[in-house]
Amino acid sequence: MMTARTRFSYRLAALLTAAWAACAPASAEEGMWSPQSLPLEVFQDMRAKGLTLANSSEIFNGSGTGVANAVVSVGATGAFVSADGLILTNHHVAFGAVQRMSTPEKNYIEEGFLARNRDEEVPAFGYRAYVLLESEVVTDQIVTGLQYLSPRERYDAIEERSKRLVRDAEQGRDVYCEVNAFYGGGAYRLDTYLRLNDVRVAYVPSRAIGEYGGDIDNWMWPRHTGDFSFLRAYVAPDGSPADYSEANVPYKPTRYLKVAPEGLADGDFAMIIGYPGKTRRYLPSYALAHFENFEYREHVRLYERELDVLDAQAATDPVARVRVAGWTKGINNRLKNNRGMLDGFKRFDLVESQREMEGQLLASLESDPEAYAECERLLGEFRVLYAEQSEHAMKDLLMELMLGRGPLLSQAMLLYRWSLEKVKPDMERDPDFMERKIPDLKRNIRLFQRSFHLQSDLEVTRMLLEEMASLPVGERIDAVDRIMGSAADAEIAGVIDGFLKPLYGGTRLHLLDERMRMFDLSHQELLAEQDPFIMLAGQLYEENEARLEREKYYEGVLSGLMPDWIAQVGRWSGDAFYPDANGTMRLNYGEVKGYSPRDGVYCEPFTRLRGVAEKHTGVAPFNCPQRILALVADRVYGRYYDPAIGDVPVNLLTTHDSTGGNSGSPVLNGRGELVGCLFDGNYEAMTSDFRFQKDLTRSISVDIRYILYIAEYVDGAVNVLEELGVK
Amino acid sequence: MMTARTRFSYRLAALLTAAWAACAPASAEEGMWSPQSLPLEVFQDMRAKGLTLANSSEIFNGSGTGVANAVVSVGATGAFVSADGLILTNHHVAFGAVQRMSTPEKNYIEEGFLARNRDEEVPAFGYRAYVLLESEVVTDQIVTGLQYLSPRERYDAIEERSKRLVRDAEQGRDVYCEVNAFYGGGAYRLDTYLRLNDVRVAYVPSRAIGEYGGDIDNWMWPRHTGDFSFLRAYVAPDGSPADYSEANVPYKPTRYLKVAPEGLADGDFAMIIGYPGKTRRYLPSYALAHFENFEYREHVRLYERELDVLDAQAATDPVARVRVAGWTKGINNRLKNNRGMLDGFKRFDLVESQREMEGQLLASLESDPEAYAECERLLGEFRVLYAEQSEHAMKDLLMELMLGRGPLLSQAMLLYRWSLEKVKPDMERDPDFMERKIPDLKRNIRLFQRSFHLQSDLEVTRMLLEEMASLPVGERIDAVDRIMGSAADAEIAGVIDGFLKPLYGGTRLHLLDERMRMFDLSHQELLAEQDPFIMLAGQLYEENEARLEREKYYEGVLSGLMPDWIAQVGRWSGDAFYPDANGTMRLNYGEVKGYSPRDGVYCEPFTRLRGVAEKHTGVAPFNCPQRILALVADRVYGRYYDPAIGDVPVNLLTTHDSTGGNSGSPVLNGRGELVGCLFDGNYEAMTSDFRFQKDLTRSISVDIRYILYIAEYVDGAVNVLEELGVK
Repeated sequence: MMTARTRFSYRLAALLTAAWAACAPASAEEGMWSPQSLPLEVFQDMRAKGLTLANSSEIFNGSGTGVANAVVSVGATGAFVSADGLILTNHHVAFGAVQRMSTPEKNYIEEGFLARNRDEEVPAFGYRAYVLLESEVVTDQIVTGLQYLSPRERYDAIEERSKRLVRDAEQGRDVYCEVNAFYGGGAYRLDTYLRLNDVRVAYVPSRAIGEYGGDIDNWMWPRHTGDFSFLRAYVAPDGSPADYSEANVPYKPTRYLKVAPEGLADGDFAMIIGYPGKTRRYLPSYALAHFENFEYREHVRLYERELDVLDAQAATDPVARVRVAGWTKGINNRLKNNRGMLDGFKRFDLVESQREMEGQLLASLESDPEAYAECERLLGEFRVLYAEQSEHAMKDLLMELMLGRGPLLSQAMLLYRWSLEKVKPDMERDPDFMERKIPDLKRNIRLFQRSFHLQSDLEVTRMLLEEMASLPVGERIDAVDRIMGSAADAEIAGVIDGFLKPLYGGTRLHLLDERMRMFDLSHQELLAEQDPFIMLAGQLYEENEARLEREKYYEGVLSGLMPDWIAQVGRWSGDAFYPDANGTMRLNYGEVKGYSPRDGVYCEPFTRLRGVAEKHTGVAPFNCPQRILALVADRVYGRYYDPAIGDVPVNLLTTHDSTGGNSGSPVLNGRGELVGCLFDGNYEAMTSDFRFQKDLTRSISVDIRYILYIAEYVDGAVNVLEELGVK
Repeated sequence: MMTARTRFSYRLAALLTAAWAACAPASAEEGMWSPQSLPLEVFQDMRAKGLTLANSSEIFNGSGTGVANAVVSVGATGAFVSADGLILTNHHVAFGAVQRMSTPEKNYIEEGFLARNRDEEVPAFGYRAYVLLESEVVTDQIVTGLQYLSPRERYDAIEERSKRLVRDAEQGRDVYCEVNAFYGGGAYRLDTYLRLNDVRVAYVPSRAIGEYGGDIDNWMWPRHTGDFSFLRAYVAPDGSPADYSEANVPYKPTRYLKVAPEGLADGDFAMIIGYPGKTRRYLPSYALAHFENFEYREHVRLYERELDVLDAQAATDPVARVRVAGWTKGINNRLKNNRGMLDGFKRFDLVESQREMEGQLLASLESDPEAYAECERLLGEFRVLYAEQSEHAMKDLLMELMLGRGPLLSQAMLLYRWSLEKVKPDMERDPDFMERKIPDLKRNIRLFQRSFHLQSDLEVTRMLLEEMASLPVGERIDAVDRIMGSAADAEIAGVIDGFLKPLYGGTRLHLLDERMRMFDLSHQELLAEQDPFIMLAGQLYEENEARLEREKYYEGVLSGLMPDWIAQVGRWSGDAFYPDANGTMRLNYGEVKGYSPRDGVYCEPFTRLRGVAEKHTGVAPFNCPQRILALVADRVYGRYYDPAIGDVPVNLLTTHDSTGGNSGSPVLNGRGELVGCLFDGNYEAMTSDFRFQKDLTRSISVDIRYILYIAEYVDGAVNVLEELGVK
């Protein structure tokens, strides 16, 4: 446990907030800037590098006429590209909606979908577009007096104050608000969004284009993926946000992006605007070591086990193969990410170089005993925190995989927790269970069904139970111990087997309708159902609450340490000093540029149409449409030919700093015009979330010319081209 | 069987021989030219592209003063680089010698070897250096009257006439002669070599440098291998060739290559001279289909099985692991090659494109009925030949793997055949068993022991017997059928097991001394040994002879068809028209140039010293010497720094046309000075043996600057540098 040594000060918070307004960016590429408060130096640097917009209000302003005002959050990122609310985003962002609108007769995932007119557009249920209206710094309202609280109290205070700020801001307005922490809690901001609930699918290319290369090419360069799609936001006839209705009309954005069909050239200035989810650029070495030695290592091990289990099922059962395809895809994606992280941690020696940096920081403070002591204290606190976290890490990870985002038991735990939370006043609930989140909870329950397969679910639960059964003494889970009884090691498999059969045999929780019905039950009614899964969730409830409590405690400690630490690091390095990504809108500028992944190899910044055909094997994910093969053979380029590369550009590399959430971010030229749609980063720079690698970190986008080429020559999407003002 | 339709004409032979003297090379890169008869157009093209030598006699001449006169055959290729007979070749070419001079106390493979003076140089037993003295066209002496012979008679006639020409040429001179076929037998040449039998090891870098990247990087780019070594040729004090003796003195070559320590730059003219072994650029589609559908496919399958067997042994037995390491390495090398071949056949659609070419060739002859009929006839004969060859291909392949170059049984067959051949007059023997080849036979027997491991040998034999046991009816091997008796499929494994135990338990053939003793026995004495392996060889002898007869027959047919076919193709295409590689000296010119293995990726033509350190993992084959890591960290470049790449160059790419046998070829600049040492080709162009791919085919060499850098900064080989005239 943290001791009384823990002190906490916000004396550096002012410095951090000031950092928004004044800083000297070390490099154009690194740094995710809030467009609402773009530092003057950053804007000047952008101008020097190729931006032609005259002042920063042309980037973002409260009237909604800046280029960033056209950028929306749709889970990941999208951007308005027409006066009628047409949104460009990634194929993989719209994937779920297209999957749901497909039927056995009409598989829009495989065939693609093009609405020839508005009437043909199909609702993307569960999709919402968030349009950022305004941002307000609320640091004082959140942090005042926090220094007098214990870590756990501090967590509650921040949550409580945030909830109130949101409630007050949303009161009487049809808006959606969020309080977001910056600089590890050194600053807070209240962001207000217009939430558009009626989003529809307008045009999606076939999977063979939009997902070309699939898991194999995922995170790789060279890339040849047409990862784009078009949605459209609708509102009530009076212009207000509304749920889906036939009477709704296209939303008229104040600002939309103009398409620049000429695209970019190697070395050209470019910027991206989007909603990056999470970076961790200011973590101390103790945290990095925890990520390398525990988080990624154990996740890789457990994902591999999970994949083995799912693959074994899929190998013998074709139904399982279809049902768990999405699940498997998700694990493969995270597995590749986490392996890349481990590669990167090793390649860049992140822990050791951070340790060296910390040594240099301390050395630089030797003439300032007070600052030296403060830094030493912070590092000491981090050491204690991560040592403590490591102690319970395995148990907590297994519970998270089982109860948080895992197999059917996670649904039981969700229903169980909800039945307890629903009776509380809204402001006292866990934020995930507040009234405004109910649609998300229901969506979670519905989505679960999409990739549910009973036997596969059972096998994954078995694997996790085996893992839990081998936790060391002191970290064991009571409910699991009770299941195991006094079984010897050799008997455990049999015991688990005997436990799982009645569990899965006696439940009704695997039926979507049943879960939706139970969602509306009171706690007593839910218990009265006597469903074995609900009962097991009840037995695990306390242990899971203890885990969530630990998480809150860790967060409380960190919210005390990080602001001071980040300020120390920032002040010392004098380097790029921007807040970590936190799901809020960010702008980042750089240029079109290749890179050398290793000595002797240069990755060119553009790939070519003929490269799509070159990868064709006839087998997914490299099953290139015949139409494209014919176009390549006939050398049909239209106006999208780029003489510099001798072909139609397909994907491009830029030096932009991006991460998960940036998917779908518009790539803009110096005039703020649309030239591409970001969809990935490169494998070699996976650890950029921790350390930006100027020579290696690249963002991967679909070139606007490929989007237009596919629309024109493959899908004949004349209406889309016309709406984009092309032709 | 071939029918009476088979006709044969040498009317095109004159055209082919003339091709040596007059042709228009389509591209500088493609084409392996004989330096002795360099076509004027080729020399002019070389001059136009950067060669500064004034006339072609400066390339090669009978007085031995041309740059090509400095190039020797040492199994692969080497080149004299000092007035005292110092030879530069590859590390992998000298590997066997270094392995044999190593002892448990002193492992020169791992540590490298540097003789500080002549006395410290160590004999490379079994190594010879062949210095080309003169070449004479002997087409008429070989081909006269061949058209009246059957294929099988033709084979014998060519062999007989060649033997006589060699015997006459060697008579009374201390030289080594060979008759070589060009243009598939359309032309013949008698080459005369000085054979230097006393070759010694002067300087070899450590394996961690010379084999850096090992099997993993083999055939790959980017590459960071210091694949070089220095040998020295010795002669008797009177200057004549002699076996090893302490009294011998360094050979004084008439010409040696001058080192150009400044190396080359991207785009620079360069040429290579060496002894490429075999290319197949003029094969008809039927032959290509046979290579794709049978040769490479079945070899890959059988190599994989063999590797499985060897790996399983190595996994349980550390002794096996060490003993079969070389064997495994060889299979891995061929397996990677053959897989690359299959990839390339598919990628470039070689069979289909050749078929199209043949269609075009026929179409072009429609106005010339006689030529059309001739072409049609040739294609028809090829079709029949390869259909026939395919019939017995599986059986012949298994016998070749078992008896030709395989496990212990191949040694038994060698002894058995030798005991029958030795009693014949020399001129009537199989050329492999003539007196002049006895040292090679003994070397074969000694070398076999190096990677022999009884249990592994037994398991590979078992695998091949299983394969033989499943040959189809009509293709079965009598001796194997007798072993199997009437065993049902399920019993075969047991039968083979019961057969192998006494075979391996009762033999003395696994002992080198015993094999050397038996080498000197008469046929009757050998049989009297009653060794079960010799007895098995005897039972298989007739079947094996039938296989060798078939090979001679196929060759006889081809020697009738290929000259006409090549002439037809050459006349029609008007393209580069040079003879296939056949183990004779060739020159090829091109430039330093990178390539794009696939869209979006560019392979730079130079790799860098820091790239060696980047690949370091601490585990072989990427266990970079600490010394190099320190040099990289300290940025020690000396005079070998190339500002164009910001580092010391390590390996380089050129557009040269090369193949197996070119290993060790000197890379020369426009002045004929030494700038590198070729050691490999790139994976993407594996099928260049069949079709040269201008955009993809590259040769990989060690940059002379890396050789000198390693000598100076890692090994302190001051004496070598001085002898090279550097410093």
